[in-house]
Amino acid sequence: MMIIPIGVIHTPFATMEKVPIQPCYSNEVGEVELFREYEEGLEDLEGFSHIVILYLFHKSGRPSLRVKPFLDSDEHGLFATRHPNRPNPIGMSVVKLIERKGRVLRVKGIDVLDGTPLIDIKPYVPSFDHSTDVRIGWLQGKA
Amino acid sequence: MMIIPIGVIHTPFATMEKVPIQPCYSNEVGEVELFREYEEGLEDLEGFSHIVILYLFHKSGRPSLRVKPFLDSDEHGLFATRHPNRPNPIGMSVVKLIERKGRVLRVKGIDVLDGTPLIDIKPYVPSFDHSTDVRIGWLQGKA
Repeated sequence: MMIIPIGVIHTPFATMEKVPIQPCYSNEVGEVELFREYEEGLEDLEGFSHIVILYLFHKSGRPSLRVKPFLDSDEHGLFATRHPNRPNPIGMSVVKLIERKGRVLRVKGIDVLDGTPLIDIKPYVPSFDHSTDVRIGWLQGKA
Repeated sequence: MMIIPIGVIHTPFATMEKVPIQPCYSNEVGEVELFREYEEGLEDLEGFSHIVILYLFHKSGRPSLRVKPFLDSDEHGLFATRHPNRPNPIGMSVVKLIERKGRVLRVKGIDVLDGTPLIDIKPYVPSFDHSTDVRIGWLQGKA
């Protein structure tokens, strides 16, 4: 299955070391630029205050099934972490949509490298995407 | 960029008409089966009560930039909807992890077709994935 970039994400983070671990650790503003041929698909997105972006971890390393996450000093199974070195290096972030200017979305809470390839945008809908009574395993007390 | 299935999702939904629109409309239990070579990556996932699964909309139609979503009779821009006919047909669901048996995860709230190809599993972490003060545009009153 081929995945194609549908846009590019512009952020203040030129190197991995500067990228926040997750959106909740970022107050930075970035621009999600959709390629021209997809612009029509953005109609009505302004009504949503938050969006989910899917993107490629284009600078990730070789997939590894055990990783040491940024928030811990112990190794964990890859799928119990958000580490970028995944079999399918796809990242997901929920960010705040500040405004749309044509095919450019200004978003707050961005946590990806400058130049990251965008692969999808979805509206964030709490009744779809939010759960309560949540346990967070090894991240308890860390996230 | 090539995406590879890392497993398969077993659900009670054999046809599109039977699939719930989102996990919040489903109480059904499904099994997320990871292929053997990735099993090691599941370690520590049991600590999490909820997981995010990414999968392919393998029965979706040709991408369309304007779609009529299941929850509305009006057309909207594709990226303001969760419609499957996307340039990159990747779906995302937050589901409850009931138990792990080896490389099979029993999950509740499944909303995908039986046989859906799995492409990623991530732990669901409210401080990463949940936002407050949310507006949901055309879905207001519908979701």
